[in-house]
Amino acid sequence: MYPAPDTTHDTQLRSWVASANQQGCDFPIQNLPFGRFRVAGSGQTLRIGVAIGDQILDLQAAGLIDSDDMNTLMAAPAAERQALRRNLSQGLSEGSAQQAAWSKALVTQAQAEMALPCRIGDYTDFYTSVHHATNVGRQFRPDNPLLPNYKWVPIGYHGRASSIGVSGQRVKRPQGQTMAAGASTPVLGPCKRLDYEMELGWFIGQGNDLGEPIAIGAAEQHLFGVALFNDWSARDIQGWEYQPLGPFLSKNFASTLSPWIVTMEALAPFRAPFVRDENDPQPLPYLDTPEHRAQGAFTITLEVLLQTSRMRAAAEPAVRLSCTNTTRAAYWTPAQLVTHHTVNGCNLQPGDLLGSGTLSGPEPHEAGSLLELAGSGKHPITLPNGEQRSFLEDGDTLTLRGWCERAGAVRIGLGEVSGTVIG
Amino acid sequence: MYPAPDTTHDTQLRSWVASANQQGCDFPIQNLPFGRFRVAGSGQTLRIGVAIGDQILDLQAAGLIDSDDMNTLMAAPAAERQALRRNLSQGLSEGSAQQAAWSKALVTQAQAEMALPCRIGDYTDFYTSVHHATNVGRQFRPDNPLLPNYKWVPIGYHGRASSIGVSGQRVKRPQGQTMAAGASTPVLGPCKRLDYEMELGWFIGQGNDLGEPIAIGAAEQHLFGVALFNDWSARDIQGWEYQPLGPFLSKNFASTLSPWIVTMEALAPFRAPFVRDENDPQPLPYLDTPEHRAQGAFTITLEVLLQTSRMRAAAEPAVRLSCTNTTRAAYWTPAQLVTHHTVNGCNLQPGDLLGSGTLSGPEPHEAGSLLELAGSGKHPITLPNGEQRSFLEDGDTLTLRGWCERAGAVRIGLGEVSGTVIG
Repeated sequence: MYPAPDTTHDTQLRSWVASANQQGCDFPIQNLPFGRFRVAGSGQTLRIGVAIGDQILDLQAAGLIDSDDMNTLMAAPAAERQALRRNLSQGLSEGSAQQAAWSKALVTQAQAEMALPCRIGDYTDFYTSVHHATNVGRQFRPDNPLLPNYKWVPIGYHGRASSIGVSGQRVKRPQGQTMAAGASTPVLGPCKRLDYEMELGWFIGQGNDLGEPIAIGAAEQHLFGVALFNDWSARDIQGWEYQPLGPFLSKNFASTLSPWIVTMEALAPFRAPFVRDENDPQPLPYLDTPEHRAQGAFTITLEVLLQTSRMRAAAEPAVRLSCTNTTRAAYWTPAQLVTHHTVNGCNLQPGDLLGSGTLSGPEPHEAGSLLELAGSGKHPITLPNGEQRSFLEDGDTLTLRGWCERAGAVRIGLGEVSGTVIG
Repeated sequence: MYPAPDTTHDTQLRSWVASANQQGCDFPIQNLPFGRFRVAGSGQTLRIGVAIGDQILDLQAAGLIDSDDMNTLMAAPAAERQALRRNLSQGLSEGSAQQAAWSKALVTQAQAEMALPCRIGDYTDFYTSVHHATNVGRQFRPDNPLLPNYKWVPIGYHGRASSIGVSGQRVKRPQGQTMAAGASTPVLGPCKRLDYEMELGWFIGQGNDLGEPIAIGAAEQHLFGVALFNDWSARDIQGWEYQPLGPFLSKNFASTLSPWIVTMEALAPFRAPFVRDENDPQPLPYLDTPEHRAQGAFTITLEVLLQTSRMRAAAEPAVRLSCTNTTRAAYWTPAQLVTHHTVNGCNLQPGDLLGSGTLSGPEPHEAGSLLELAGSGKHPITLPNGEQRSFLEDGDTLTLRGWCERAGAVRIGLGEVSGTVIG
């Protein structure tokens, strides 16, 4: 059974950290996401913290954990994590006896330097938006955009862990081989079709042993939580290199994560049914249970914002490029990704990252990449200041934001992930 | 300049470890490969050792290193590694003053339990045999087996690090989705086309920073050495899942490494020219220098042996399935793999693994997989005891062996990597 929302989700709950109670705050007391930080410029070893309003509670300083190793914390059984959440919720609530002690363990977010939330051993990227798969496939196979395996197999592939950075990353435009249309010789040069991909990154908590698949009913017990993820992509390099073994240098020059992992517990109020259109193939039994049908999905809204260097110079705010949510965009749920990934016995480890793949919704303006929004360069986007974009240019800052909201629950945010392209 | 063979390669050099001087020994004093071990059953933390004859020299016990962390040792500049090699060579030579002290730091290989030689952060698999790429491509595209990018791009993709094990691994036959020819619905079930791939695994020593490509002339300074690598493959799962993002569950259930890393220094006498047929495209300049043309390749011979459970029960030895060498099989050199991998700025880290891809030579009997040897199941192999194999069956033990030999140099071996399929 999926854990139901509990007292930690109570809409009446308020924190003695005043900023957490403000309308629209990403990190109210109902959220409590985990991250790693140090006081900026201190050179401290990384600490584990929980975001509350505009503050961070240092968990070791508050006496809540012994080790400052996030992967160890992630590896704990779900019941232990849930107990820690209840402690955090109680201790941060208005009127809590911990207020005096814990206020000394607070660090202002503005003074903190965030790191990747954990050590990522292996990173897998999936392809969970059928709309993205169709949009991209249409460019290669106009009459048959979606391959026959798509609606049966949660398609995924391995990515590069070493080049994943945290929000604020400066992304150097990659060099690579490209083959121009009609040319007979490829050339090496800077990528001309640099793109972003609007994704979620799901983190593994407890792992599984090699050879031991995780059944769909147990899959969520192996998930720790979710962050925002920008999978930067070099489309021209990708087009030339990707057959037959998939994308490689077009992806592994950089990917950027938001610093806070919103836990599976925090997401409980935002569950949604897993719906499969009756005209589509129904999932094979290993990816399907009645309980998963009833509430195996989550509704998370995502948006992409762009600020060019000209906009920055003119102090103009970033503009929204697109917005969608996972219920509209995702063909497979996080539980299905975990179960499919391990059906062959593959072992997942605490801290491993499962990218959702680009989350494009069904309508054109819900697309999660410039490749889709600007029709592969054929229909450039015009920005409010008159600039045009087919792909990203040097100086562009790309930001993803995400949040969950519904009537009867307190809105929680995933924060944001930003990155700037440099030449 | 590539370092030339030096006194550590002297053919007259003999060790006071008598077994190292035996004809045909994989680990003569000219080799000195690195691995991690513990005395079997001792539960010790892993030690770093160097293989010499049938013994292991415990480097910390011999006072040669401070830390038992192999990745730290691998990260050292090439000059430091070379100095350690000279120390080892001198101390293990007949008549050395170290003999009395170092004999106390020896452990018999038969009493040791070997582990993976290092922590593998990221694992990339390449596709360096044009013959393998052609053989496999022919099954999908009989008229156009080799894709247009192959002769320009050292094709590679990311693999799974968590499921890499050391020689002796028992490999559970994976479950997975497959789609039978003519069927309209896939099924989940045990893999029916389980295969091996005969590869080399090149290990990264010193890493590079994100955004900083490694030029071809510097590439080998970032390589630590080489081991044998079996990239087990589920061909039926692969056929159904691999488009458009590449192989995933068909590969990540297990891969197996040999325990000893033969260093770049040990390989010095076995350099070979990098040859590109004049009818083929010549490498782009970033993958090509005169020095690399002259001696950027290595000649390493590889063979595959199979012992079925019936052969084991009858005490019949393993039979050779195929044999080739890298000069015949590899279209790209290890230096080219490093340079291509980083041309976009991707950062490599000490301990990262670069698989060569299946090393098939030009003749049919030189193929590095059963898929090729048995014509995708159409031409089963008949073993000496009458058994037939199209793919691997439960109980089969697959062993790769590798070595370098040429006139005027002492033969060195890579040892072996074995794995057994279990149901």
